[in-house]
Amino acid sequence: MDDSGYMAMALELARKGTGYTSPNPTVGAVVVKDGQVVGRGFHEAAGKPHAEVVAIEDAGPLARGAELYVTLEPCNHTGRTPPCTRKILGAGIARVVVATRDPNPGVTGGGIEFLRANGVEVTEGVCEREARKQIEWFIKYVTTGRPFVTVKCAMTLDGRIATRTGDSRWVSGEESRKFVHMMRHASDAIMVGVGTVNVDNPRLTARIDGMKTRDPVRIILDSALSVREDAAVFNPDSSAETVVVTTPGCDTEKRKRLSGKARIIELETKNGMVPLDVLMERLGEMGVASLLVEGGARVIGSAFAERIVDKINFFYAPKILGGDDGVPVCSGRGPVLMKDAIRVNEVSVRRFGADVMIEGYVG
Amino acid sequence: MDDSGYMAMALELARKGTGYTSPNPTVGAVVVKDGQVVGRGFHEAAGKPHAEVVAIEDAGPLARGAELYVTLEPCNHTGRTPPCTRKILGAGIARVVVATRDPNPGVTGGGIEFLRANGVEVTEGVCEREARKQIEWFIKYVTTGRPFVTVKCAMTLDGRIATRTGDSRWVSGEESRKFVHMMRHASDAIMVGVGTVNVDNPRLTARIDGMKTRDPVRIILDSALSVREDAAVFNPDSSAETVVVTTPGCDTEKRKRLSGKARIIELETKNGMVPLDVLMERLGEMGVASLLVEGGARVIGSAFAERIVDKINFFYAPKILGGDDGVPVCSGRGPVLMKDAIRVNEVSVRRFGADVMIEGYVG
Repeated sequence: MDDSGYMAMALELARKGTGYTSPNPTVGAVVVKDGQVVGRGFHEAAGKPHAEVVAIEDAGPLARGAELYVTLEPCNHTGRTPPCTRKILGAGIARVVVATRDPNPGVTGGGIEFLRANGVEVTEGVCEREARKQIEWFIKYVTTGRPFVTVKCAMTLDGRIATRTGDSRWVSGEESRKFVHMMRHASDAIMVGVGTVNVDNPRLTARIDGMKTRDPVRIILDSALSVREDAAVFNPDSSAETVVVTTPGCDTEKRKRLSGKARIIELETKNGMVPLDVLMERLGEMGVASLLVEGGARVIGSAFAERIVDKINFFYAPKILGGDDGVPVCSGRGPVLMKDAIRVNEVSVRRFGADVMIEGYVG
Repeated sequence: MDDSGYMAMALELARKGTGYTSPNPTVGAVVVKDGQVVGRGFHEAAGKPHAEVVAIEDAGPLARGAELYVTLEPCNHTGRTPPCTRKILGAGIARVVVATRDPNPGVTGGGIEFLRANGVEVTEGVCEREARKQIEWFIKYVTTGRPFVTVKCAMTLDGRIATRTGDSRWVSGEESRKFVHMMRHASDAIMVGVGTVNVDNPRLTARIDGMKTRDPVRIILDSALSVREDAAVFNPDSSAETVVVTTPGCDTEKRKRLSGKARIIELETKNGMVPLDVLMERLGEMGVASLLVEGGARVIGSAFAERIVDKINFFYAPKILGGDDGVPVCSGRGPVLMKDAIRVNEVSVRRFGADVMIEGYVG
């Protein structure tokens, strides 16, 4: 097997940490001696050992003179755990293969430099594209301090997310909805508008059979503080908190009552709306590294208009609503010319049952 | 090679006739002797020899004792050409492999029965699914007398076919637009609303580099006879005619002027609209076996509402228009409940450059 074959194994291992590691990235590692995989590891959760350490300890004495494949540059600084570069030297690893450098501006390249200075051979850039995609949210977060924003939306083939009465049960099929729960589990937070909460009353938790999921923080955009107080999002049993984002001058009594079951964030309006760019700054400060925007049309429209979106996952269900009175994907004002539409890059397609999912990147 | 391998060759040959054969279906045939292909043929155009005849003549004396693979049951009646079953017997073909029976209710099974009665071994149903898909328009037409209706639409990922000012140049990319010209070439007629003609002024011809295409009949839905008289669809150089479908009581002077460059069909309105079901009947009588509906939103909305649609080809371009003021896929009134949306079956996906095409069948 060549370098990219072993790195593919490390990437596969890394994936097991999805949803548990934030604010750390998912990382996987394998130790290879004489063409045999002798150690495997992945970063299980923030505060737990790094992938390299797990893999080296799994290899035991066989690590001496072996090769280490790791999806992210080993750390060279003491965080919650001692630096991995020390562990690598101590174990006598002869060669380290790295998929991509640590994107953190303060430390990038430092681990590789330290290893090379200490006589370890280092190969970089193996499966780099896939490795960067796997930690795309981490790259955005550590380089900008703001969350990586994904807009998820399920629509009919003619672009409607609900009927004129707001009925959306169900647009997409079971397989798509399962995948959405995986996306929720992998996200630090979910954001919806108050309309979605008041009409659909979703729980916004990640529910997957046979898996101990991590609930995302639930963020409700509610400039007029009109959320129903018995909403399912105010779930006291969830491991994650609920955040209501509102504007000054709202009903103070209601605000007081809600503050018992949710964190309230107040932001000055901009053109009558909650300013999403300011909110992203605040969410970043709160440690939200990845945000899933789930609708409805006003929130999705604003997210695109304010250019906070990094990625889209649009699910197209095999049905035609017909008519122009159903709920569209976006509300708000669009451009005059088609050439001024927002470009979506690196488009890929995936099937979930009869549904078609289109994924792509914005900006 | 097994039966399905030879039939795949016959299907590939049949495809060469696409766009030229109507009201006949495309048909392909190969003659196989001792495992070697010794004859090939396809139906080139209405009035020209049938595929079996071409393949048998291509095989010459080698046809004796050989096997004939043909995508459609050989005809047993004298049409513009003598029956193919006679040719098969005369040539001494020992075995005939047929993909699918002639769907024409009056003759279905007759060719196969005649061949068997005369001592020829016949195998049916090889690659039947693909063969039926290839002539889906013909099956609809001969069984109902109405055209097979395909709705083609190019939209942004958020379901808009144009901006609020009607700008749609270009929603989809070059590869998609090339494929649309192939679809036009393969269709007997194209239908658009008068809004599309007056705003975009399309030629609605099939233009493909290096190919002698067949223009479709251009059908303009124009209940108030408001079409611009200098429209590009009134193209005197095209091999196909233009049809304006209007309602009684329109400007008779304008009607008279237009009748010099287009056929005018007058239909009584139903709820203020041209009744599409009645129109389909009329088009069937005119020999239109396949119809491509190209928009805009009112025509597409009506086509779905009146349940005349058989197939959709929706092109999703990698862009987000944003806002709810762009032109939607359908206009009109949709259902109250999502479960009452129109189902789309046998969904498949194809990429054209960065665009995603979703194809499916309705009803």
